[in-house]
Amino acid sequence: MSATETTNQTTTNEAFNSLFVQELARQIRAQDSYGFYRNWADELVIKPYIVSKEAKRKISVEGDVDPVTKGRILSFYRAIAARIEQETGLLSQVVIDLSHEGFGWVLVFSGRLLLVARTLRDAQRFGFDSLEKLTAEADKLVEKAIDLAQRYPEVGKL
Amino acid sequence: MSATETTNQTTTNEAFNSLFVQELARQIRAQDSYGFYRNWADELVIKPYIVSKEAKRKISVEGDVDPVTKGRILSFYRAIAARIEQETGLLSQVVIDLSHEGFGWVLVFSGRLLLVARTLRDAQRFGFDSLEKLTAEADKLVEKAIDLAQRYPEVGKL
Repeated sequence: MSATETTNQTTTNEAFNSLFVQELARQIRAQDSYGFYRNWADELVIKPYIVSKEAKRKISVEGDVDPVTKGRILSFYRAIAARIEQETGLLSQVVIDLSHEGFGWVLVFSGRLLLVARTLRDAQRFGFDSLEKLTAEADKLVEKAIDLAQRYPEVGKL
Repeated sequence: MSATETTNQTTTNEAFNSLFVQELARQIRAQDSYGFYRNWADELVIKPYIVSKEAKRKISVEGDVDPVTKGRILSFYRAIAARIEQETGLLSQVVIDLSHEGFGWVLVFSGRLLLVARTLRDAQRFGFDSLEKLTAEADKLVEKAIDLAQRYPEVGKL
């Protein structure tokens, strides 16, 4: 194993141990009514979130976002909401408004405060280059939300 | 014409002259790409929003909300957003998340402030008993939003 490979391995392990990735696996398992993922490792459960640039290009952005991808987007933002709750105590709602063209909004809110507000584009291709990018993106969203919740606690509790 | 009838007539005229009803008609006409409503009076354009209790009972709440009803809900909340903008100067977005069972959320937000946050139930039956009830409901939503925008101007501009 080369030095580079060792480093990558370490980074991936760290990403796997992140609180967000654990929460994401938990959210996916919570939707798993038939116990399909019961014997799967977290690594496998989360795998569909890693979509390479090449793989993305092959996914058509014509027509509706399929229900499986929609479910994947919802679990991702529910995990964000759960992490926010763990850090701030604020219970929040996730709302996703997707048009038929894969364009739309994702909102996470508590009281009258929008903790996350993002537009989605080409949602048919939802995914991340690598697990590191996924955790980096999630951590950024969670940090921003915590900051907002701390700056406007009153609005978050309305 | 009896005295009661005269009173009702006056109330209806007042409701028709309300800023909200004018805005609602404007929003519906803005979606009217084929000029279908061009020669219709506002009164007729707005008529589908008035749904009696009996008529509501006859609408099935099984299955999806049909696109026409969805469009009607969207125009209603876009008119709310437009009225809020006229009163506060805040530009806002309308997001509607409807499940397949007619249950969901309507959110109107500006910056990180949720100006309107409502759950919808039996959205297939969206409508109001009378024009007076429609304007009363709309005015209440607009007033609450203005109040929030004035209390948390910083959050609305984030």
